[in-house]
Amino acid sequence: MYPNIQAYDRGVMFSPEGRLFQVEYAKEAVRRGATSIGAIADTGVVMVAHKNITEPLIIPSTVQKIFKVDSFIGATYSGLVSDGLHVVSMMRSKTQMHRMVYDETESVEAISREISEEMQMATQYGGIRPYAISLLIGGVDTEKRLYEVEPGASFSGYKADAIGSGRRIAAETLEKEYKDDMSVEDAINLGVGIIKKVNEKKLAPENLDISVITKEKGYTTFTPKEISGYL
Amino acid sequence: MYPNIQAYDRGVMFSPEGRLFQVEYAKEAVRRGATSIGAIADTGVVMVAHKNITEPLIIPSTVQKIFKVDSFIGATYSGLVSDGLHVVSMMRSKTQMHRMVYDETESVEAISREISEEMQMATQYGGIRPYAISLLIGGVDTEKRLYEVEPGASFSGYKADAIGSGRRIAAETLEKEYKDDMSVEDAINLGVGIIKKVNEKKLAPENLDISVITKEKGYTTFTPKEISGYL
Amino acid sequence: MYPNIQAYDRGVMFSPEGRLFQVEYAKEAVRRGATSIGAIADTGVVMVAHKNITEPLIIPSTVQKIFKVDSFIGATYSGLVSDGLHVVSMMRSKTQMHRMVYDETESVEAISREISEEMQMATQYGGIRPYAISLLIGGVDTEKRLYEVEPGASFSGYKADAIGSGRRIAAETLEKEYKDDMSVEDAINLGVGIIKKVNEKKLAPENLDISVITKEKGYTTFTPKEISGYL
Amino acid sequence: MYPNIQAYDRGVMFSPEGRLFQVEYAKEAVRRGATSIGAIADTGVVMVAHKNITEPLIIPSTVQKIFKVDSFIGATYSGLVSDGLHVVSMMRSKTQMHRMVYDETESVEAISREISEEMQMATQYGGIRPYAISLLIGGVDTEKRLYEVEPGASFSGYKADAIGSGRRIAAETLEKEYKDDMSVEDAINLGVGIIKKVNEKKLAPENLDISVITKEKGYTTFTPKEISGYL
Amino acid sequence: MYPNIQAYDRGVMFSPEGRLFQVEYAKEAVRRGATSIGAIADTGVVMVAHKNITEPLIIPSTVQKIFKVDSFIGATYSGLVSDGLHVVSMMRSKTQMHRMVYDETESVEAISREISEEMQMATQYGGIRPYAISLLIGGVDTEKRLYEVEPGASFSGYKADAIGSGRRIAAETLEKEYKDDMSVEDAINLGVGIIKKVNEKKLAPENLDISVITKEKGYTTFTPKEISGYL
Amino acid sequence: MYPNIQAYDRGVMFSPEGRLFQVEYAKEAVRRGATSIGAIADTGVVMVAHKNITEPLIIPSTVQKIFKVDSFIGATYSGLVSDGLHVVSMMRSKTQMHRMVYDETESVEAISREISEEMQMATQYGGIRPYAISLLIGGVDTEKRLYEVEPGASFSGYKADAIGSGRRIAAETLEKEYKDDMSVEDAINLGVGIIKKVNEKKLAPENLDISVITKEKGYTTFTPKEISGYL
Amino acid sequence: MYPNIQAYDRGVMFSPEGRLFQVEYAKEAVRRGATSIGAIADTGVVMVAHKNITEPLIIPSTVQKIFKVDSFIGATYSGLVSDGLHVVSMMRSKTQMHRMVYDETESVEAISREISEEMQMATQYGGIRPYAISLLIGGVDTEKRLYEVEPGASFSGYKADAIGSGRRIAAETLEKEYKDDMSVEDAINLGVGIIKKVNEKKLAPENLDISVITKEKGYTTFTPKEISGYL
Repeated sequence: MYPNIQAYDRGVMFSPEGRLFQVEYAKEAVRRGATSIGAIADTGVVMVAHKNITEPLIIPSTVQKIFKVDSFIGATYSGLVSDGLHVVSMMRSKTQMHRMVYDETESVEAISREISEEMQMATQYGGIRPYAISLLIGGVDTEKRLYEVEPGASFSGYKADAIGSGRRIAAETLEKEYKDDMSVEDAINLGVGIIKKVNEKKLAPENLDISVITKEKGYTTFTPKEISGYL
Repeated sequence: MYPNIQAYDRGVMFSPEGRLFQVEYAKEAVRRGATSIGAIADTGVVMVAHKNITEPLIIPSTVQKIFKVDSFIGATYSGLVSDGLHVVSMMRSKTQMHRMVYDETESVEAISREISEEMQMATQYGGIRPYAISLLIGGVDTEKRLYEVEPGASFSGYKADAIGSGRRIAAETLEKEYKDDMSVEDAINLGVGIIKKVNEKKLAPENLDISVITKEKGYTTFTPKEISGYL
Repeated sequence: MYPNIQAYDRGVMFSPEGRLFQVEYAKEAVRRGATSIGAIADTGVVMVAHKNITEPLIIPSTVQKIFKVDSFIGATYSGLVSDGLHVVSMMRSKTQMHRMVYDETESVEAISREISEEMQMATQYGGIRPYAISLLIGGVDTEKRLYEVEPGASFSGYKADAIGSGRRIAAETLEKEYKDDMSVEDAINLGVGIIKKVNEKKLAPENLDISVITKEKGYTTFTPKEISGYL
Repeated sequence: MYPNIQAYDRGVMFSPEGRLFQVEYAKEAVRRGATSIGAIADTGVVMVAHKNITEPLIIPSTVQKIFKVDSFIGATYSGLVSDGLHVVSMMRSKTQMHRMVYDETESVEAISREISEEMQMATQYGGIRPYAISLLIGGVDTEKRLYEVEPGASFSGYKADAIGSGRRIAAETLEKEYKDDMSVEDAINLGVGIIKKVNEKKLAPENLDISVITKEKGYTTFTPKEISGYL
Repeated sequence: MYPNIQAYDRGVMFSPEGRLFQVEYAKEAVRRGATSIGAIADTGVVMVAHKNITEPLIIPSTVQKIFKVDSFIGATYSGLVSDGLHVVSMMRSKTQMHRMVYDETESVEAISREISEEMQMATQYGGIRPYAISLLIGGVDTEKRLYEVEPGASFSGYKADAIGSGRRIAAETLEKEYKDDMSVEDAINLGVGIIKKVNEKKLAPENLDISVITKEKGYTTFTPKEISGYL
Repeated sequence: MYPNIQAYDRGVMFSPEGRLFQVEYAKEAVRRGATSIGAIADTGVVMVAHKNITEPLIIPSTVQKIFKVDSFIGATYSGLVSDGLHVVSMMRSKTQMHRMVYDETESVEAISREISEEMQMATQYGGIRPYAISLLIGGVDTEKRLYEVEPGASFSGYKADAIGSGRRIAAETLEKEYKDDMSVEDAINLGVGIIKKVNEKKLAPENLDISVITKEKGYTTFTPKEISGYL
Repeated sequence: MYPNIQAYDRGVMFSPEGRLFQVEYAKEAVRRGATSIGAIADTGVVMVAHKNITEPLIIPSTVQKIFKVDSFIGATYSGLVSDGLHVVSMMRSKTQMHRMVYDETESVEAISREISEEMQMATQYGGIRPYAISLLIGGVDTEKRLYEVEPGASFSGYKADAIGSGRRIAAETLEKEYKDDMSVEDAINLGVGIIKKVNEKKLAPENLDISVITKEKGYTTFTPKEISGYL
């Protein structure tokens, strides 16, 4: 069976079972990325992301895992760093373009869909490999929203969701402990708790990014000092 | 015989028997997708689609299987999620463009044909793989219409039709129980019944999308509450 | 000898004997398509096509095998459904363009030649596979005309001709029974008779498309009721 | 030695002996084509071409082997039908364009050279296969002219020449029996005689195309009735 | 396992474990490059780079390892010389363009991000190999900044960092001896010390590039005479 | 060693020894071409080319081996006929363009260099094979000139030179018998003598092209009658 | 190990050790080229190049190894003749363009860098092979300059440098005998001496190109008579 797999997993093409192996391999890269968690809380959307900083001289603030995409939209990714940065940069251009053309903030679903379309093309055309990232895109428009896009480019909305190496453990915990309309504080604590559980090493404030998007304040990100209050 | 098959199933080219293996493999992906059903009833076209939601924290309304394409046109797909979303988005652009250019709603057949042409190209040109989706496109123009387009890009009109993993079972039931001019209610019940039969797990309202397109109201989609009345 | 063939049948290139295997494989797909018949009769050109409808809920009128290309031109194909629909759509654009530019109906030979040129390119350039269809293009301009174009893109005019799975049997019958200036009625009966002979299953009106193109009425297609008179 | 050949005969590239195998294979296709003959006679250029009509219902006049390219230029080909039709169509566009730009008939040598350049590119660039045809291009400008272009794109002028399956036999006969300033009648009889010799089957008028290009009348083609006078 | 690796390391595509082998091989080229060190000191950013000059007749000043990118931005690379020169040239164009369009100096992070996006594309598209360089980009805008970009195109900010063959040894030393707000003098001495440790051969002034970027003087580079004071 | 060669001789790429096999194979095709000779004589440049006419009905004047490129420039080639014709046609366009843009005759060196650049590209880029011709380009501008360009695209000036199958024998004779400032008559006789020596068959006037380019008369070509005087 | 190498040396891609084999093979072609030497002397830059003229009838002045690029810039190459001519032609266009746009002579470093960028692209993109030449580019702008660019596209400045087959021997001699501010005469003698040492055959004036670029006279090249004074 092994030679059979090899025959269909190079370039974007179907295996006899209708699978796209290059997409599945890209997901493998996501499975090795640091964990990110998103959750819809009572007054806003919460994002907590692990930053796996192994070198002591790195400036933690420059290793960003949660990004402000627009005034009311944030995003976090797991997987290939450069793919993540590239897609975030693409999202920023697209929301800015939307604002220029329509004079309004793009909805969270609309930008998620646009990114999904970009990522879909990388699974259908030759001469390009699939993106090796999953994304959590959260924000507030008429409602609080949280979407996941994965290397195969499908996207779904979640109340709470996790991507990256801790996805399985995180999902179990979220399913047990996430509650509708839990407070932002509780949601952050839940997220931080999961990342603590997933990682063996002790967490310092600089190993976390925490951001919250609310109707009132839009996208806000926590300082290391604020983060340390949750450790 | 096995090495022989392998020789012709990578890239878009014919096997000695005139088969396009990449198209056949794409159909395999459709055969693994969740089931969607469409039926022409007395006063409108009915669409019922199964949503295979495995994660409890997914927001079911964000996992859409039936889409409003235009005021009087809806569509549902089975197969690769991102291919489905991409084609639906393409359909919306095309019908909008039609409205802008001709100042009229595009007919259901015309938009089905346009999508079929897009999907045909993905079976004839290099550097792109075939789409791994089947589509049911339903609507009302001068008449009630229901079309299916499949990965090989052929399309046909149906009184009632099913795509996805339950296609075979669904077809048997439809052939026995579908009746011309059955009421919209009966058609929905028939569709829901088939999806119940196809799936072993108990269905919750959030496991279904139900939409109806009528001359009077155009495309309408059911709320979970309305859906629960059919379970 | 077998490995030798394999070496030249992928991509468009010549075998040592000067053969284009991909074109020959495309013809194999045509040989598996439903039979279509065309014949020049006394007052018009007759087209009879078999529609192999296997699913009872298909709406037969949506499975079209004979198409109006222009007021005085019709076409039928055998082979890959989506290739057939694509080429018919191309023919319609070309004749419409001709009308716009030259303010006259394009001749049957001219449109056949144009399609032949399109299909020739798919046999000479890389990055595209040959079309897997044969076409019968019939019509009336200064005279009654009937042309065949095949996957290798050669085209010839016929008094009467058949394409698809029943080609060989049809040809024998046509050669024996076709007569110059036979009446349209007789030609239709001859065509229907052949399709009956070729197929084992009993024919219903919805298993046939019949169209006639005459100087007087241009392209007309038969209703199922009219068709049933010939069964 | 055999595997060695295989290594260089796919795609346009040189073998260690400096041969282009794809061009040689294309010539093989020409060698299997029906025979065409051209000859310069006293008052014009004569072309005689065999039409291998195997199906009785084909309309012989639609199977054209000699084509009017311009008022004083004709052409005939042997080899792949669709390549032949494509190149003839290209020649017509080019001579028409010449007339439009320079307001004069293009010379026979000029159009032959232009076609040779097109065919040369198909032997040097990737992504396209060589043309599988030989052409005889004849006409009258300041003089009577007859040129041959072959799949390798070289071209030469001939007093009398043959292409296709009967080339070898035809050449022997032409060398013995062709005479400078033989009459058009004699040249036609010589050409018809050769085609009779090359083919085992009895020739009917519809198995031949005969055209003559003279200073006085330009390109004229014979009716079946006229042709029958030479059988 | 070895043949398995070979199957995925040619062209840009994922291995079953989600790795991009061509990127990893490019890093190998960086690992063989001469060492460069960057550090943020109290009043500016310090860059020290080893120049491995093996030929005595080379003019050392022409072998540049640290480059002025803009008035307040410098960069050094390790890896393939021509890739390094190409990217530096690209950075200069981009900062110049930024100045022209926005009439302001581009921030260090912005130019690093732009280069990272260029390098990301070389890891995702076919027809181009990844860049075989790591870059340290340092400068002063609202703050002192130091970024690293590597062949996989990820980038992070550092207080102090090393790239090239001495990276591992340099990192150990930097972690032990680097101090926040150490003086520029001390930072240079630390950098030079590391390069001395990494290389067995005695260092001459022409084996080093030293540059400092400060708020006051912008980018300044040391003369060999100034450098010799640190040896 | 044999499999090793095969690995590098398809497509334009270097072998481990830095050789371009496709260029070397193209030279092999030149080595099989008919011989052409060029020589600078006292009052002009002489070109003598062998025309290997094997078919008696070919019109020798149409098999051209020496071409007028411009009023004072001629060229002859050995190798692939269609490549030769194509490059001559390119030379004519280029010199004409030069005349139009600069209102002066292009120098022999300039046109040789331009052709060399075109031929160089065919040795460096993919998707095109090298030209399988050598060229002798002769003419008079401020001086009498004779250049050779070969498939590898290098070019050099010669006092006297030969290309094609007789190159080796021709070179020996030229080295012995060519004299600076020999008369045009002597040079022609030398050239014709070499071609006689190289070919076993008796030469007829139609087996030779002879052209002379002088300051006074520009490019002149000999009639068969004039040629017969040298046999 | 051998099969391992073969796997990475076709097309531009990295081997597991981060090497670009096609670039290394191109260097092999340079190593087989005739030797060129450059040296900065007291009043100018000296270039001496060996011309390996094997055919007695070649006109030595047409075999150029040192080229005037601009009034104050010269260049010599070793390696593939046509690549050398192509790059020299490119350099001339670029310096001319610079003069037109900026109304000043381009600096030696700037043109060297531009050529290096062109050559870098041929090592990173598919569909093109690396250039198989090394270049010495010398000239005078604000200072006397001498740069080397090699197939991998790196470039460095030298006091004195050699490229081609004699590089190793030349380097040893230059290191021993080159002196800063040696006279132009001495530098020429040194260069000629090295070429004598490298080649076994006796040198004639026509086997050498000698050029000098000085502030006063710009680029000047030596006549054979002047050259013979150094033999």
